[in-house]
Amino acid sequence: MLSFAELSQQFSVYFSQKHFPAEPASLYGPNEYFLKNGGKRIRPVLCLMGNELFDEIKQDAWEMATAIELFHNFTLIHDDIMDNAPLRRGQETIHKKYGTNTAILAGDVMLIAAYELINNVSLTVIRQVQNLFNTTAKEVCEGQQYDLDFEGRESVSFQEYLKMIELKTSVLLAASLKMGAILGGAGQRNQDLIYEFGRKLGLAFQVQDDYLDAFGDPGKFGKQVGGDILANKKTFLLIHAFETATGIQKNELKKLMQENPPDKIKKVVEIFSNCKSDEWALQLKNKFLDEAFQHLEDIAVLSKRKAPLKELAEFLVKRDH
Amino acid sequence: MLSFAELSQQFSVYFSQKHFPAEPASLYGPNEYFLKNGGKRIRPVLCLMGNELFDEIKQDAWEMATAIELFHNFTLIHDDIMDNAPLRRGQETIHKKYGTNTAILAGDVMLIAAYELINNVSLTVIRQVQNLFNTTAKEVCEGQQYDLDFEGRESVSFQEYLKMIELKTSVLLAASLKMGAILGGAGQRNQDLIYEFGRKLGLAFQVQDDYLDAFGDPGKFGKQVGGDILANKKTFLLIHAFETATGIQKNELKKLMQENPPDKIKKVVEIFSNCKSDEWALQLKNKFLDEAFQHLEDIAVLSKRKAPLKELAEFLVKRDH
Repeated sequence: MLSFAELSQQFSVYFSQKHFPAEPASLYGPNEYFLKNGGKRIRPVLCLMGNELFDEIKQDAWEMATAIELFHNFTLIHDDIMDNAPLRRGQETIHKKYGTNTAILAGDVMLIAAYELINNVSLTVIRQVQNLFNTTAKEVCEGQQYDLDFEGRESVSFQEYLKMIELKTSVLLAASLKMGAILGGAGQRNQDLIYEFGRKLGLAFQVQDDYLDAFGDPGKFGKQVGGDILANKKTFLLIHAFETATGIQKNELKKLMQENPPDKIKKVVEIFSNCKSDEWALQLKNKFLDEAFQHLEDIAVLSKRKAPLKELAEFLVKRDH
Repeated sequence: MLSFAELSQQFSVYFSQKHFPAEPASLYGPNEYFLKNGGKRIRPVLCLMGNELFDEIKQDAWEMATAIELFHNFTLIHDDIMDNAPLRRGQETIHKKYGTNTAILAGDVMLIAAYELINNVSLTVIRQVQNLFNTTAKEVCEGQQYDLDFEGRESVSFQEYLKMIELKTSVLLAASLKMGAILGGAGQRNQDLIYEFGRKLGLAFQVQDDYLDAFGDPGKFGKQVGGDILANKKTFLLIHAFETATGIQKNELKKLMQENPPDKIKKVVEIFSNCKSDEWALQLKNKFLDEAFQHLEDIAVLSKRKAPLKELAEFLVKRDH
């Protein structure tokens, strides 16, 4: 059994190859540029770990892990266009550096390249794996569309936000694990359990991400604290605050969102605290994390095989007591 | 054996179903809207004809034909963004009606939906069919990228333009036929021959299209005559004219392209005529058409089975003697 760090290292060596032909350089150059920029490679490693939970890692899992990483990068390239993001991991995005048209096409061929790799998977599982991959790919697009829709809306309910996050973020983590499990020969019940583990882990991770935006330690948190607040992003915290605030608090929150005063972050965080949205979010995160671990617990393999996944989950989502 | 018209009618009935779930309506609504707009459905029918050339049409061919039509529409949705086209078949394009972000995602899920259908194809041929589909899909993107690149360039050679057209247009026609042939149980040599037939037919079609822009009968030609000339599009005619014109003619052509006078179309057509680009284009078209028919001739099946494909080719590309 390999740890997340070891698998991550091995995958990063495996992945550091050219993924596209040389010509047309105006199309494939941008893709190689984008892929070289790294990233945490969490999803492909989840696929490898899903495999290794049940059996030794097969060549199929490496192909699949690479396909998943290419798919993830396809979504990033297109999302960056939609969000008009100038930077990704401190480096210019494709649409910023090479133009929107090339970014659209670069994403398109990145997705097709993912399918090329999946087509190498053993015939005994190809239909099952592709079925899950296709369903997940559509769900991720649906999640992104809901996210776009929510931007233009005045309010979003907890249930709506949860569904959006599930589609946009969780299902790919869950499916990465499950695809690895399928390749590792897992039975249906174990496949379902590992999927649910990934889904709940993804939700816990997003709650944490939303929490840290408002209550994170600026020194430790990778992103600008309060970025979501400045952008009026509908997060778990904002949705909870709106659902529990008094009339006066609600009006103040709306005013802050409309007028963007210099002390906006401080004032909004105060309202979140007064609504106890921080405590609520930590409880929600722990609930999802507990559910995730319960699913992992229920998987019918020796407990020691689960250690790397437990370690990864603890690394991604710190438990708060 | 069914004629193109009969198969086209059957396919249009088969295709007139909902292809996407109801929600999110903001994503799938635009796709259903776009698909309802029709089109000639040439590519899926080529797939059915490629199958019927060798055997009775199988369910696999209907799935594959639908996948091909979805793929073709994916390329149209994304191309329309890149070309900033307001209309497609007289109806607003997705990016114009619903915004660029939704158009990007709508194209993405259209492509994924194509893969969902391909995943239904029999296991005995799934890898082969997907391999051809993936290669072709990448080539079509490459062709579009070359097309974008050429827009910004001063000159494009005949060979470069030919390669671009082959990738952007011909390979999908060729692959549609070949995928049908694979599903119909054709041997390797027959598969190669029908692919070459489609490839050459696509080239002949594009030469004709370029020719008709300048020399077509405005009453018969579906598009505005001279549209390519007004847009300074590098066509077979313009490339030939630049390669054969005298220094004086070349300068006049450049001046017309820069200054866009009211009589631009008339003047450019005159130069094309003086360079005999029209005669050259008709010869080139006939050359590709002859080659296409020779490949069809060489396919080892009874001659009468080839009648519908011959009829379709004559319909798409009128022979000029």
